[in-house]
Amino acid sequence: MAVTATRNLQASSKPEATTAPTLDFTRNDNRIDELLSLLNEIADLRALMALSEWDQNTSLPNGAGEIRGMQMATLQGLMHERETNPRIGKLLGELEGAVSDKRYSDADRGLVRQASRNYSHATKLPRALVEEMARVGSASFEAWRTARATNDFALFAPWLTKTIALQREVADRFGYQETRYDALLDIYEPGMTSKRLDSLFATVRKVSVKLLQRIQTLGTPMNTSCLEGKFSAAKQDQLCIKILEHMGYDFERGEMKRSPHPFTTDMGSPFDVRVTIRPIENLMQAALMAAIHEGGHALYEQGSPAEFARTPVAGGASMGAHESQSRLWENAIGRSEAFWLGQFNVVRRVLGKRFASVEPSEFARALNAVEPSLIRVEADEVTYNLHIIIRFELEKQMVNGEVDVNSLPRLWNEKYQEYLGITPPTDTDGILQDIHWTSGFGYFPTYTLGNLYAAQMYETLRKVFPDFDERLAKGDTGFILAWLREHMHRFASVYLPEDLITRMTGSAPSPTYFERYLTRKFSALYHLPPEK
Amino acid sequence: MAVTATRNLQASSKPEATTAPTLDFTRNDNRIDELLSLLNEIADLRALMALSEWDQNTSLPNGAGEIRGMQMATLQGLMHERETNPRIGKLLGELEGAVSDKRYSDADRGLVRQASRNYSHATKLPRALVEEMARVGSASFEAWRTARATNDFALFAPWLTKTIALQREVADRFGYQETRYDALLDIYEPGMTSKRLDSLFATVRKVSVKLLQRIQTLGTPMNTSCLEGKFSAAKQDQLCIKILEHMGYDFERGEMKRSPHPFTTDMGSPFDVRVTIRPIENLMQAALMAAIHEGGHALYEQGSPAEFARTPVAGGASMGAHESQSRLWENAIGRSEAFWLGQFNVVRRVLGKRFASVEPSEFARALNAVEPSLIRVEADEVTYNLHIIIRFELEKQMVNGEVDVNSLPRLWNEKYQEYLGITPPTDTDGILQDIHWTSGFGYFPTYTLGNLYAAQMYETLRKVFPDFDERLAKGDTGFILAWLREHMHRFASVYLPEDLITRMTGSAPSPTYFERYLTRKFSALYHLPPEK
Repeated sequence: MAVTATRNLQASSKPEATTAPTLDFTRNDNRIDELLSLLNEIADLRALMALSEWDQNTSLPNGAGEIRGMQMATLQGLMHERETNPRIGKLLGELEGAVSDKRYSDADRGLVRQASRNYSHATKLPRALVEEMARVGSASFEAWRTARATNDFALFAPWLTKTIALQREVADRFGYQETRYDALLDIYEPGMTSKRLDSLFATVRKVSVKLLQRIQTLGTPMNTSCLEGKFSAAKQDQLCIKILEHMGYDFERGEMKRSPHPFTTDMGSPFDVRVTIRPIENLMQAALMAAIHEGGHALYEQGSPAEFARTPVAGGASMGAHESQSRLWENAIGRSEAFWLGQFNVVRRVLGKRFASVEPSEFARALNAVEPSLIRVEADEVTYNLHIIIRFELEKQMVNGEVDVNSLPRLWNEKYQEYLGITPPTDTDGILQDIHWTSGFGYFPTYTLGNLYAAQMYETLRKVFPDFDERLAKGDTGFILAWLREHMHRFASVYLPEDLITRMTGSAPSPTYFERYLTRKFSALYHLPPEK
Repeated sequence: MAVTATRNLQASSKPEATTAPTLDFTRNDNRIDELLSLLNEIADLRALMALSEWDQNTSLPNGAGEIRGMQMATLQGLMHERETNPRIGKLLGELEGAVSDKRYSDADRGLVRQASRNYSHATKLPRALVEEMARVGSASFEAWRTARATNDFALFAPWLTKTIALQREVADRFGYQETRYDALLDIYEPGMTSKRLDSLFATVRKVSVKLLQRIQTLGTPMNTSCLEGKFSAAKQDQLCIKILEHMGYDFERGEMKRSPHPFTTDMGSPFDVRVTIRPIENLMQAALMAAIHEGGHALYEQGSPAEFARTPVAGGASMGAHESQSRLWENAIGRSEAFWLGQFNVVRRVLGKRFASVEPSEFARALNAVEPSLIRVEADEVTYNLHIIIRFELEKQMVNGEVDVNSLPRLWNEKYQEYLGITPPTDTDGILQDIHWTSGFGYFPTYTLGNLYAAQMYETLRKVFPDFDERLAKGDTGFILAWLREHMHRFASVYLPEDLITRMTGSAPSPTYFERYLTRKFSALYHLPPEK
């Protein structure tokens, strides 16, 4: 069983001593005060933007799309005006040197780092480029939709070419040490480089491919019939709300609604953090696992200190750090037998007799079926990262100018055959499946980074709590949340992700933990024989 | 029956010829173009403010109240910055004279008039005064809540005194011809004066008091038992949505939700106009009539021309004009037998067997029970305006400095005894009942103005459509909406309310129509003997 797989792990990741965190802003420095008041205003505008987007996804009448677009463009313009205020640049210039001094706190340094980053992003791109990106983004999105519907990559190719050119310009303007791709990656995962990813992902790829082959050839097939059944959206809402409550999601500072795609957003962490799900009648586990996933994101935001509200150090440290939380809860915890032992009474109570005769262990097993598929968002834990690595490899080549756009469908399909053993029958199921490339590059790798970080935290957690499974099986998840709050959430984005992970787990980001986690969990689930 | 009461009306209100409306902005004047682009931005910010308020009332988590307040204050500050842009003042200065020229359209003149008004309101109040008003408003609201809960007017009195002083200062800064109260009234009902209201309301008061007395002494008591029964919020939602659809409310450009108090708002008319209701389990008619009332407001906003979107001529001409739409639909139409003849199948279908044996006429009658009560928001059509007139008389005295605040509870109670024949047993049921005086004065009279305007439109409608009742009884309301769209909604706020009413009905605002409407309707409903 997954839940016992890491019992005998080697003591390789003992948390090391780090300097004690200092998390109060220095209040006797007028420059910090003034900076904060300018940043508060920007944070408020961002929150209003998040509210507009939330409303777009959960409420906006069909006929209001166009006028809402204009309103959001106005808000975007105002934000840009405020974000590029030269006074911010001046204050940051003075503070950047100053805050390295010990008199200043970690929070001050985080604040200046985050604010400088935002200021640099806002000021380095000329207005014409930003507008061109918005224009190409919209047109590219429309072309992508049509291309997908008609399975015609040629319709999308010219827009992808334009997007590549624009993203290269963005990279040049932001600046980078080694490759253009690094500049884009840094937007989502500060401090990360493609060289580093190459090394991390090489292990992930090797481990995943091998494990998949072993499962396919040696594994005991898994029965997932216990998940079948039709359940109303209202019932699924009810179940998801209960599970979110049990995870510690605070409905006094949040709300769950339905939307076409599940997501988490905040209109001012930690006070207003909301999630959505999308119930599908005959696929109950989709909304359920989405709720746990989004719940993981939301708990991170709800754990951001109140003192950081309305500043750029509020909320998650990076996309990868964020994804670590959603994946930890969804996969390591939410797909474990111990978790469902503790929560299955809720499933039975809400969904009724269909689950009276289903065992929690059977349910948990069924949530872990491995099956190479063409579609990333439906992938299991073993194959998921292969989908990401394919995208990472291709977009790196695009940004670095090493590939002809027209050859991409072929390259995509070759990689799917090589890594997953399947070839997409159409480009719609292949290179046209994700929305991401209608706007840019550098985001995909953070999904896999999230999985690596999560595994690293999971191993640490199991070491800290030797009775991890027993607690979970009793329905207790509070000890996990408390640990995450203490060792991660309260730091919000004060530290760079790498520093944060090191602080939490005693070791820098590494693929070893994920390798151990994945191999042990799925070897047990699929009754794989010991390796020779 | 109410629905036949105005059959024999005298032909006193034949619509007069007016100049043909010109409703396109002049596009070959750079000053108009520039003004529009500045005003578009302000309109977008207002829409975002409306969205924030909508969210506050329908979604906002309890714990997010404070941070949302800060975000809205930031937005308010930005709006004020934009609204007071001297460039707007300059352009308006140039255009104010120019647009009287025939080359310009009614829309241009309306635009300049509305924009000048907004600019004047924004620039005439110094920032310190605006902030003081916000501060006193919050404190006054808290004091009012406590005062109400403890029936202790003395707690509220000092804040009311401060509010009076601030409102007098606002009036002085805005300027007025005759009395300070006129300056405040003009905020909500442009062009209206208290002298004019005195004259209109004198008739309303006389008519209402007399009719109430005749009903109480000579009327056949009314049986309202057919409205009893418990209905789930979900059922009430369903019924209200159906009725809104039948009224012509466009759900493609709107949405209905629940909130603590029913309201209508827009985030950009006509594209995004939303309503709320508040279902109460054992008081089905409350949500139902609120839906029709809010539907009336919403139809007005949804009828605003697309070309006026994001400008200050979009949407209703005044609070009174707005209230005319909600009252016309709620009372003149929505409390008529003909309307329920046409809609009762929906009630039966949605609410089920409870209404199988109830007749539409019985249902419509029950919606019109007259009973003097202490509470304005629960008042019937006969007594409603008396509640308003009492408030109008008192707030006029407050603003004009003619009354000692401490004597207000006594004056309030005396007026209730005089007009309605009842004395509030406590100040909680008396002078402390409304939230309005925690922020200011001048709004209340627009409720009664709405009733007068509505009656004037209703009489006109019945003259234009001799088969008014027959159509309604067949479930048709489209002809009413079409007429309102043609004669009112498409003008949005291009004309001042008085001009608009004259244009629609051929006569300036007058109490005669309301007098006829009320007397005929309730004489019939209560089987009153002919007057001597």
